Amino acid sequence: MPRQVNHEARRTRIEDAVISIATESGFAAVTIRAVANHIGASTSAVTHYVDNREALLRNAIRKELDIRQKDAETAIIGLDDSAALRALIEWAVLGSDEQTHRRWLALVLGAVTEPVLRAELDRFNDWWDEQMYQRIARVRPADPLVAADLLNVLVDGLIVTGFDAGHLWPSGRRARLLDTVWRALDL
Amino acid sequence: MPRQVNHEARRTRIEDAVISIATESGFAAVTIRAVANHIGASTSAVTHYVDNREALLRNAIRKELDIRQKDAETAIIGLDDSAALRALIEWAVLGSDEQTHRRWLALVLGAVTEPVLRAELDRFNDWWDEQMYQRIARVRPADPLVAADLLNVLVDGLIVTGFDAGHLWPSGRRARLLDTVWRALDL
Repeated sequence: MPRQVNHEARRTRIEDAVISIATESGFAAVTIRAVANHIGASTSAVTHYVDNREALLRNAIRKELDIRQKDAETAIIGLDDSAALRALIEWAVLGSDEQTHRRWLALVLGAVTEPVLRAELDRFNDWWDEQMYQRIARVRPADPLVAADLLNVLVDGLIVTGFDAGHLWPSGRRARLLDTVWRALDL
Repeated sequence: MPRQVNHEARRTRIEDAVISIATESGFAAVTIRAVANHIGASTSAVTHYVDNREALLRNAIRKELDIRQKDAETAIIGLDDSAALRALIEWAVLGSDEQTHRRWLALVLGAVTEPVLRAELDRFNDWWDEQMYQRIARVRPADPLVAADLLNVLVDGLIVTGFDAGHLWPSGRRARLLDTVWRALDL
């Protein structure tokens, strides 16, 4: 009987390897050869599933971002606009561990030089901006554009601050900060 | 006549190579061999100036952060507390280009796994926190600790947002955001 290859499991191993190498060494280090080495297979075992490096990166990142998107959508089911905004911010900042934050920063930095990452990140950010802006506009703070900017800066800032300070801030400290911003923006 | 080696210039080339490799590929890629390759010299030409990899990283980062610190101190000479706070934030966010921001993120991420980077970053952050907190306490907003947290998150957030969005925000957009935060914190 021929050896059965579980194609779905193989695809997942390849995608996981892309994310793992990128998180550790940046996206510049992600090559078909590096991924093959990482999973202990030949390069042809990788190119059987992806035609080239660009497709390799696109598949892995799109899958990762699709999961993040579904996860966020689940977090806001049934909430009104103001509560959903708060839940989206808390999901982005609190609902993820250090590894997820490192992956996010690796992607954001990688997008500076890799157009395929830029395209996937733009796609995700378009979705995120729509989620945020529609709700902000309905809650109607004094200046919706500034409110959206401040909330976005807050998310990115809280992610980096954890690394900058050497540890994630305790949730109470982050909650006080969010409360201050919520009052300031009249959300 | 023996060939003259300009030791100061050689030290600077080594330090520049450390920063350059780290910005491109992360600090994990910075080794004595990689630095030697980068400057087209032997490893012994590098170890003539630094005993080991730890010293290599420490020298380069300390020099970089000392320059940043002096630069910030120059930006606030003669300003009152409120104006100095604003100038420090603007210096951190506006007064630096994309390369400086990439270097900063590489350092912040590298500090997760490299104790020598963590120590240098802590030293810089202690200085920064003192600059910020003393002034915030004298301006006396309602809650100085939350004010300091929000300003720090703002700096890290504005740096990352530039990469996240694919381009730095225009200065007017950043200024409007800072104005909103200044009013909110009563600074």
